[in-house]
Amino acid sequence: MFRADEIAQKVITPRPRDSHKGSFGRVLLIGGHYPYGGAIIMAALACVNSGAGLVSVATDRDNITALHAHLPEAMAFEMSDKERLMAAIGQAEVILIGSGLSEDTLAKSVFETALENINASQTLIIDGSALNLLARYKLTLKTNKVILTPHQKEWERLSGLEIKKQNATNSQSALADLPRGTILVAKSQATTVYTVDSACLLGVGGPYQATGGMGDTLAGMIAGFCAQFRDNLFETVVAAAYLHSYIADRLSKDAYVVLPTSISQVIPKVMKEFSSLSAKNSCDQS
Amino acid sequence: MFRADEIAQKVITPRPRDSHKGSFGRVLLIGGHYPYGGAIIMAALACVNSGAGLVSVATDRDNITALHAHLPEAMAFEMSDKERLMAAIGQAEVILIGSGLSEDTLAKSVFETALENINASQTLIIDGSALNLLARYKLTLKTNKVILTPHQKEWERLSGLEIKKQNATNSQSALADLPRGTILVAKSQATTVYTVDSACLLGVGGPYQATGGMGDTLAGMIAGFCAQFRDNLFETVVAAAYLHSYIADRLSKDAYVVLPTSISQVIPKVMKEFSSLSAKNSCDQS
Amino acid sequence: MFRADEIAQKVITPRPRDSHKGSFGRVLLIGGHYPYGGAIIMAALACVNSGAGLVSVATDRDNITALHAHLPEAMAFEMSDKERLMAAIGQAEVILIGSGLSEDTLAKSVFETALENINASQTLIIDGSALNLLARYKLTLKTNKVILTPHQKEWERLSGLEIKKQNATNSQSALADLPRGTILVAKSQATTVYTVDSACLLGVGGPYQATGGMGDTLAGMIAGFCAQFRDNLFETVVAAAYLHSYIADRLSKDAYVVLPTSISQVIPKVMKEFSSLSAKNSCDQS
Amino acid sequence: MFRADEIAQKVITPRPRDSHKGSFGRVLLIGGHYPYGGAIIMAALACVNSGAGLVSVATDRDNITALHAHLPEAMAFEMSDKERLMAAIGQAEVILIGSGLSEDTLAKSVFETALENINASQTLIIDGSALNLLARYKLTLKTNKVILTPHQKEWERLSGLEIKKQNATNSQSALADLPRGTILVAKSQATTVYTVDSACLLGVGGPYQATGGMGDTLAGMIAGFCAQFRDNLFETVVAAAYLHSYIADRLSKDAYVVLPTSISQVIPKVMKEFSSLSAKNSCDQS
Repeated sequence: MFRADEIAQKVITPRPRDSHKGSFGRVLLIGGHYPYGGAIIMAALACVNSGAGLVSVATDRDNITALHAHLPEAMAFEMSDKERLMAAIGQAEVILIGSGLSEDTLAKSVFETALENINASQTLIIDGSALNLLARYKLTLKTNKVILTPHQKEWERLSGLEIKKQNATNSQSALADLPRGTILVAKSQATTVYTVDSACLLGVGGPYQATGGMGDTLAGMIAGFCAQFRDNLFETVVAAAYLHSYIADRLSKDAYVVLPTSISQVIPKVMKEFSSLSAKNSCDQS
Repeated sequence: MFRADEIAQKVITPRPRDSHKGSFGRVLLIGGHYPYGGAIIMAALACVNSGAGLVSVATDRDNITALHAHLPEAMAFEMSDKERLMAAIGQAEVILIGSGLSEDTLAKSVFETALENINASQTLIIDGSALNLLARYKLTLKTNKVILTPHQKEWERLSGLEIKKQNATNSQSALADLPRGTILVAKSQATTVYTVDSACLLGVGGPYQATGGMGDTLAGMIAGFCAQFRDNLFETVVAAAYLHSYIADRLSKDAYVVLPTSISQVIPKVMKEFSSLSAKNSCDQS
Repeated sequence: MFRADEIAQKVITPRPRDSHKGSFGRVLLIGGHYPYGGAIIMAALACVNSGAGLVSVATDRDNITALHAHLPEAMAFEMSDKERLMAAIGQAEVILIGSGLSEDTLAKSVFETALENINASQTLIIDGSALNLLARYKLTLKTNKVILTPHQKEWERLSGLEIKKQNATNSQSALADLPRGTILVAKSQATTVYTVDSACLLGVGGPYQATGGMGDTLAGMIAGFCAQFRDNLFETVVAAAYLHSYIADRLSKDAYVVLPTSISQVIPKVMKEFSSLSAKNSCDQS
Repeated sequence: MFRADEIAQKVITPRPRDSHKGSFGRVLLIGGHYPYGGAIIMAALACVNSGAGLVSVATDRDNITALHAHLPEAMAFEMSDKERLMAAIGQAEVILIGSGLSEDTLAKSVFETALENINASQTLIIDGSALNLLARYKLTLKTNKVILTPHQKEWERLSGLEIKKQNATNSQSALADLPRGTILVAKSQATTVYTVDSACLLGVGGPYQATGGMGDTLAGMIAGFCAQFRDNLFETVVAAAYLHSYIADRLSKDAYVVLPTSISQVIPKVMKEFSSLSAKNSCDQS
């Protein structure tokens, strides 16, 4: 049994000098469809601040100005432009879909385009509305590097497990019906990261995080981490999720509620601290 | 006779660990209609920073980008979309209407939709232009959890009381004509919170607050507080109004004028301080 | 001969407790017409941070989102809406026109509307493009509370004085052709505030201010000061202009170039410092 | 052989008191064409913070609001408006083209307009997409004050040199085919500034800079420096490129990744430090 904090220290290594933007990955974030534009902005802020090499955002045309007002660092295009979307999917190492995607016809179509065009070498993070679309339309996942980030109700819809039955045994059983290697970030007051045969309880976080957008920020961090830290996908996801709540804990010393965008602002600073440590542990993986 | 500062300490309790976004309420903010778009942005900043669980904003489509440039944490949709508006009203525990709502046909229609669809379990805060619409069209309030936040001229229009006659006795008498339980935040240099049989003078605040948008920020804080602190509505409103001016007082040590958005920035920090105190008093409620 | 710093200390008095938004004036700012949208944003930031009670901005519709992204505190409407413009002019105590107004047909028409509808009790500040329009079309000024804020080239166009002849004697003579009481802020490396028979050299400021938007910020501060400090218009203008460059001087200790928006951010803090002092001097007014 | 840090100290001189906006140059930045709007925003932030006198941006109309949300200090117009574009080119001392310009028909046409209308007294910085357009269409450069800022792949396209052959000898040979005096900023982990017969290795920077937008920020700084420091173009470019990475190094003490916009925020502070030093060295120029 290993600790999430030790995994975070192991994953967040100093950057090699001999590196460039490509070393830290291309990420495509898909979401922020009216009326949920803010969600993908929060995911993008988290992703860029986590150190992803290049971040593109597929969203509503109307949402691009607000995104760029926060983050000119992200490239952005209209998600309804299928040609551009397919090109962007082809170039990305990591794709996050679902933060504020909504569940209308366009959302479904965009999600299907993503599912059809992704290949086994790409990491796919499925968040928010996309989890509901997945459950509702029983869409098929092909890739074997899938990360799911449901809260309890979303996990219920997807797995059929009632919230009170969402323990380790049942959640891991449900994962067996999904592509081999799928990672589940089961968000709750005791967020746990699962694969079919691994589990890591975060042990950080608190009620100051109970505010809209917290999950979008987490999803963006996971995307940013997966783009950079490629040795062990499970540990990378644990590290991202741990750091997200660890930062919230720190900020909560001086804040009754911790806003998602406040977390993103300090990611570079806290990652620097972790990269300066040298723990070399690993987590509960059987 | 109890003190507003003691009430604030009593109301702003530490969050229970066993909580989630739903524990801190869904709030719907309606307003920011051209040319008053900024008002609802300020209300939303105050509401989210006060710790509301989920905040949605019904406003002009054109106003959403500026809102999201400040606050991607808030969901936002077009207030003229009646179907979506009614759905959002149905889901909210707290509804604030009027900050920059304007008084045109659309504003009136949106207000009427809100009044028709709200039920007795929901808290309704009526601010700014909505107070004028209420006075002008003699609209009927059904819910029994109403909070009014007029400045003196708005209260005159609504109650018929000239400004110089707006003392406790007269203002409380006027409240008797409104739904039972209605709370009045009578904004002036000596802001007082009333019910028909209770009164609490804030005793904080000053002329550095005399700048546009201060009331929108107050309204947003009240909404955020009502979403979270549900034991005693009167005390909750007192706590929000007290904290608003208390923060202004603090910031005024280093500022000739205190901007509304400056107040919102420090709400989480100051609420944290209050939650760490343990006063258990209560206010002048007969 | 009095010193500008002493005038600033005299003008920036503590706010009376018995005051409200109306005590600090309604200001209307007109400008920011494509492609100069940023100018009126900077003027508005300066004006609101200077403590004006209520600030409205008449600008391009397209420019409102960027304005609100900076400053939800300002109300904003489309300057081509003549009806609304006239109403706003009617309500304002102080009108600033010209920061980024441009010089096209709409700009000229808006300026003419302002000139036709302003009355002798209102203060009119004429800046930037409006100074050029005034010179080019020989428009007539009716009000007797006019403030002009030209740089040297603009003053040349308006007065006919070549830059090298713009000394006190000549500039004051030129003022004699303008409405009685007109105040000239002659911007240069030695900015001086003139009336036909008064002069005050600022004696602050430096080359770190030589960047686009500095004048828009100054104009906005003058508007904010005129809205609040109404005893002596000349001294009020001196105080605003002095404080503008005084802040730049302070910031330049740690900055090679001082951005206009950086100045606005610290206006409330520096005004607080000045209001705590009690100098009671006055300037060179014969 | 001289050191880049000494050159930076030599170039960044205190501003003469007897100066005005014109002393620090008019800069025109062209780029930010969909879907790369953010790039020109980052260039503009860097340019204005570097102290350019007046900065105009030619970009998509849709991109202006996001630009102004960051930087009201920059004037901005639609790059497809050829008449305005030509006027702006005529007024600028320094033109930067290519940051997020894209490579479509409009981009090519805008670039051609720039190339046709620029004269030998103007400095032209060619970045990003414009370098690719230059390579693809074999466009002709007339001006003799050209600065190229390619990363390795862009330099390969332009010079025909494979990345592994991009050493000093070969890169300088390739420069011989370009207008006399052309300066090459060869971006890599060991960024070097070249003319046909000079070279200066920066010796600063690191992997925390490997994130999207870093090059746009560098291009904007070079533009800002060229506008102000006109004695020796090569040294000016070295100073800008050096300072860019020097700032990144400093920020990396507390940040795992250094965002481009973080660099721009501290340019005025760091330039102030350098201007206070008095080194009088010069670089390897034969």
